[in-house]
Formats: sequence, C-alpha cells, structure tokens
Amino acid sequence: MTETTAPDPTTAVGADEHDGPHGYASDKAAYLKRMRRIEGQVRGIARMIDEDVYCIDILTQVSAVTKALQSVSLALVEDHLNHCVVGAARESDEAGAAKVKEATDAIGRLVRS
Amino acid sequence: MTETTAPDPTTAVGADEHDGPHGYASDKAAYLKRMRRIEGQVRGIARMIDEDVYCIDILTQVSAVTKALQSVSLALVEDHLNHCVVGAARESDEAGAAKVKEATDAIGRLVRS
Amino acid sequence: MTETTAPDPTTAVGADEHDGPHGYASDKAAYLKRMRRIEGQVRGIARMIDEDVYCIDILTQVSAVTKALQSVSLALVEDHLNHCVVGAARESDEAGAAKVKEATDAIGRLVRS
Amino acid sequence: MTETTAPDPTTAVGADEHDGPHGYASDKAAYLKRMRRIEGQVRGIARMIDEDVYCIDILTQVSAVTKALQSVSLALVEDHLNHCVVGAARESDEAGAAKVKEATDAIGRLVRS
Repeated sequence: MTETTAPDPTTAVGADEHDGPHGYASDKAAYLKRMRRIEGQVRGIARMIDEDVYCIDILTQVSAVTKALQSVSLALVEDHLNHCVVGAARESDEAGAAKVKEATDAIGRLVRS
Repeated sequence: MTETTAPDPTTAVGADEHDGPHGYASDKAAYLKRMRRIEGQVRGIARMIDEDVYCIDILTQVSAVTKALQSVSLALVEDHLNHCVVGAARESDEAGAAKVKEATDAIGRLVRS
Repeated sequence: MTETTAPDPTTAVGADEHDGPHGYASDKAAYLKRMRRIEGQVRGIARMIDEDVYCIDILTQVSAVTKALQSVSLALVEDHLNHCVVGAARESDEAGAAKVKEATDAIGRLVRS
Repeated sequence: MTETTAPDPTTAVGADEHDGPHGYASDKAAYLKRMRRIEGQVRGIARMIDEDVYCIDILTQVSAVTKALQSVSLALVEDHLNHCVVGAARESDEAGAAKVKEATDAIGRLVRS
C-alpha cells in the first residue's frame, strides 16, 4: 500500500497464483477516477473539521464517503466473481470452492465493516 | 466541502444556531491527523488498482478504510453528544429533544452506510 | 435473555443504577408489537429454507429482518438519549459523560454489526 | 413467507428457472437450527422489553441477533456461489454473468443493511 515504485511481478505476494489481468483491469481508469473523487471527499472532510463546520454535517459527509467506498467494493466483488471465481470454477471444483471461500471471507469483512 | 477560503461565520449555514466551538474542537489536531492517514490509505488503494494488485487484497484495504472512517464517526458522535446534545438538554426539554432527534438521524445514516 | 420469571429488581445487575422507567417504557406496547412482527419474519425465513425457496429470495428476506432490527435499535437509542442520557447530564458532568460513553459504545456495536 | 402449506413447485415464482436442490440444501437441518436459535433470541429481546431491562443491554442483544443473521447470510452466499453461480458459469458466459449480477445485488443489500 505504501510502495511508490512499480511492483515486481516476480516477488509480489501470490504473483504466481494471482497473475494475469484481474477482474477490474478492463475498468481500471473508471476505478482510478472513483478513488480520486473519494480522496477529494476525504480531504473535504479534513477541511470541514479545520473550519469548525457543525459536527452533524461532518458525520453526513463521512457517511457519504463510506457509501462511495462500499459501492467501489461491490463493483470489485462483481468483477472478481465474473473473472477470478468463474475462471477457477471452470478449472476444477476444488479451485472454484477455494476462490468462493476467499471471496466470501472478503464479503464478510465488507458486511461487518 | 469544496471551499478553500476561510469560512465567514456570519454567512455559514446555521451559524447562529451552531455557533461556538463544536464537540470536536478540543481534539481538532487529532481528528485532522486521522483524516490525513485515511487520505493516504485511499491514495494507497488507487495505487494498488494502478499496479494490478489482486482484487481480494484491494477489498481488504477498502474494508480497513471503511472501519477507520466509522471509528472517526463514532468519536465525532461521542464528542457531539457530550457537548451539543448535553448543552441543549440543559437549556430546555425541547432543545434537548431536537438535538437528540438530529443526532439519532445521523447515527441512522452511519448504521445504514 | 432466557429468564422466564419476573426479574427481581433488587438483584438485577445495576438495579440501583438503572432503576425506574427506561426510555422505551412509554412505547412498550409498540416495541413489543415490532418484535413480534420480527419474530414472525424470522419464522418465515425458516419456512422458506424448509420449502427450498431460491437462495437469493431468502437473502432478501434476511436483509429485511436486519433492517427491521436496526430500526428498532435506532428507536431505542433515541429514547435512551432522551431519557437516561439527558437525565444523567442534568445531574452532573461526570454522570452525563459516563452515560454518553456507554451509549457511544452501544452505537459502535450497532454500526459494526 | 407466510405460506403454511407445502409449496407447489409448478406455481412457485421462478420454479422453472431456480428448480432443483439449492446451494443450502445439503445443510438444511443446520440452517433451520440456526434460524430457530435466532427466533429464540428475538423472543428473548421482547421479554427483556416486557421486563423493563436496561436499554443498553437490549441494544447489545439486538446487535447479537443482527450478527447472527449476517452470519447466516454469508453462509447462504457461499453456498449460492458454490452451486448456482458456479453451475451457471459452466453453462455459458451469459448465464454466469447474470447469476453474478444477481448475487452481487443481494450482497449489496447485505452490506447496506
């Protein structure tokens, strides 16, 4: 998360396993645009705090950012199911079940966060 | 949210009503530090997408940012209840009930987001 | 939660501290009606499972029950803030802050669940 | 949800489309047991309200039920992905994508509830 140089695909965690274009690859520009907008919203909240804006208005804005992040997450989940999970399921039952388990765990973290 | 100049307290929305230091004022520096860290995390997610990191690892990081935002929200709620709501409740039953209604609505947006 | 006999107010946990009518007391009949409806919805989900209803339709119904429970929670929070928290705040700063802390912790459990 | 007689598979909504054993079929007894436990917890909350238990303790119990329902939802999602979605994906790209879209929408309702 804090790397600033291009990642080395031969050393990245799980490079062998997760190699190749991911589910979100075709929409990369759209995802990056959404993340830049969210970054701007987060900066806006800091500015609201700095300018002593009323607490409730800040809370409303934090809820909006949380919703925007959840919306990105759901799009990532859909892309992931369509590519990685479906691909693994076509390989073998075991590969499919392993990917489904991994995806469900990630969905569980979303539901609980 | 998008203003870049210092706010004019005489024109800000609800300036008369919400005037004076807010609940979070005493911790302003701490809140700003937390928001800067969250901004860095959001930028980190954009970088992960740009570097084709595995979808599940991105989802995990989005969940972490959502949790960090919820934690800021809960701290804001506590500060708000301690200052604005308690202050209004000491003024009158009506003022207290109005602030409690407003706070509960904001909490509802948090719970559902 | 599993007691079936009337609680003994002299032995209940925190009886001295939390004694007297609670925030929700005036609406007790309405709360009980909502809980009975939720109980019926839960039984309905069990029946859907028993009758092999399509998974997605069951998931939709589970989401509806979760929303109904959250709605009850928010009503309880509002009643609690209006009675217990406001009452404590009028007693003393310390009593108010203690009740606000306790309420915020409960709100945190709602937000994260 | 309110039917008490055995469903007629020829008239059930989507019977043709969603026919056959569903993802959760093999664990039906376990799911029914979990739902009965949740039903008991809901009844316990009604009893707490009836017995004037302290608001915060009721909120804690409502959060516990919400968590139990989410846990059932996640198990249903995993079973659904493993059976219906994987099965559709093996049929055709279109069938797979349609099921993934439907599952993602249901996951979105969980995340937001």
